[in-house]
Amino acid sequence: MSDLSRFSFNSETAKHWPLPDLIATAARRGLGGVGLWREPVQEAGVDRVAQQVRDAGLEVTSLCRGGFFPAADAATRRQRIEDNRRALDEAARLGAQTLCLVCGGLPPGSRDLPGARQMVADAIAELAPLAGELGVVLAIEPMHPMYCSDRSVISSLRQARLLAERFPAEQVGVLVDAYHVWWDPDLYDELALLGERIAGFQVCDWTVPLPAGVLTGRGMTGDGCIDLRGLSRAVEDSGYRGLTEVEIFSSDLWQRPGAEVFDLACERYLAHVA
Amino acid sequence: MSDLSRFSFNSETAKHWPLPDLIATAARRGLGGVGLWREPVQEAGVDRVAQQVRDAGLEVTSLCRGGFFPAADAATRRQRIEDNRRALDEAARLGAQTLCLVCGGLPPGSRDLPGARQMVADAIAELAPLAGELGVVLAIEPMHPMYCSDRSVISSLRQARLLAERFPAEQVGVLVDAYHVWWDPDLYDELALLGERIAGFQVCDWTVPLPAGVLTGRGMTGDGCIDLRGLSRAVEDSGYRGLTEVEIFSSDLWQRPGAEVFDLACERYLAHVA
Repeated sequence: MSDLSRFSFNSETAKHWPLPDLIATAARRGLGGVGLWREPVQEAGVDRVAQQVRDAGLEVTSLCRGGFFPAADAATRRQRIEDNRRALDEAARLGAQTLCLVCGGLPPGSRDLPGARQMVADAIAELAPLAGELGVVLAIEPMHPMYCSDRSVISSLRQARLLAERFPAEQVGVLVDAYHVWWDPDLYDELALLGERIAGFQVCDWTVPLPAGVLTGRGMTGDGCIDLRGLSRAVEDSGYRGLTEVEIFSSDLWQRPGAEVFDLACERYLAHVA
Repeated sequence: MSDLSRFSFNSETAKHWPLPDLIATAARRGLGGVGLWREPVQEAGVDRVAQQVRDAGLEVTSLCRGGFFPAADAATRRQRIEDNRRALDEAARLGAQTLCLVCGGLPPGSRDLPGARQMVADAIAELAPLAGELGVVLAIEPMHPMYCSDRSVISSLRQARLLAERFPAEQVGVLVDAYHVWWDPDLYDELALLGERIAGFQVCDWTVPLPAGVLTGRGMTGDGCIDLRGLSRAVEDSGYRGLTEVEIFSSDLWQRPGAEVFDLACERYLAHVA
């Protein structure tokens, strides 16, 4: 198999596969890195996982996830910001390049979308200096508009870029996830404008019909309709030199052995992205 | 109950309710119009329905739907355009102000989104003169990006506006459906830019979780998180003087008697939109 040194595997793609297996396999197969999630890392122990990835010579391309900033009351918003400070600390200890921000949806019962967006901006403004000190980029992930009410009021690359540009690039960037942005009529223009703001690049594929709840129906790379090679080229043309991370939430894939999903994802990366 | 003269009820909201019942009830309750769909109108007879709505003194705010332009081969694209010519003819006979365009998704197996968008533009260019002759506006409906692969490669108001602006406003406009555009960070800017291009305004509400297939989970006006009053005001401020049409695809509502759904929609229009 060809070069996987610019490929990274997000642990959630094989969510039931133990982290030590993932890390060992990724290292053996010559991947450049892994993407990690807070909960399994916390269970295994942050410093222990940090040691494992360092020993394996892997990068941590992202820690998922911070965010979920909007809330109806100030006390809850404060708690969320404190939790994001802890997430930044964990990211720094792991040596993660970015903390992925799923910015959060509308507070329950709210119809005030501009207000929720302002809460996101305010929270990022508060966290950005700490991110800079710790050497971790807050990576705003514009999410597919179908998640606007309950997961992220940041819905387009342009919106994420304009927000990120209020801060130094070493503090705040944008995470480009093919699943969330492939439909955007301004996709290629925005990628060119993003340039050094691209803090991470994730791939999977868009397949229909979507399942109920629309959370776990992502397609394996190459199984859907996204022009991943064109997108990957545009990300690279914009100046991004980081790894390409595969991140797939799929109830189908989660039924299969982790090693099998890993192999398939590597194969598909080489066939459809690299 | 207060003034319903600027309200229109789309027949699909109570899809099992016979058209004569809808038309009679709408007229008795003082609605300004109804929105109709091709298939039930064809079954009942286009000219017969046209006579019924004329006799009832109702406007036909939209005929749904034309579109579905992209296809893998030229012969199929030609068939689609011919079908849209027939749809325009039906719209004209009904006295409908607009033919709603669900522009179509990617051809099966295709990853060429720019190509599909070009097919949409080419088809509209071919149909626009006929629309002008018949006095029916082709109303491009930007659809929620979750339908990009299979229903409409036109996903944002800006994209729809830029396409519509290539043609005279009496030939091509934009249909603003709250469900499809509420998330858009550029929503209010785009509504202001649209001005006379707004060819129709539809409401319903956004509720989660979305059902499998994401087609029949629209919320009754007022049950979700869309700021419908703010949106309605912005549409009016842009210069739109047409009716507000309720259009809800909901497997829940379709289980209920049409007259009951109609009453609820009127009540909610007055409470949340008017």
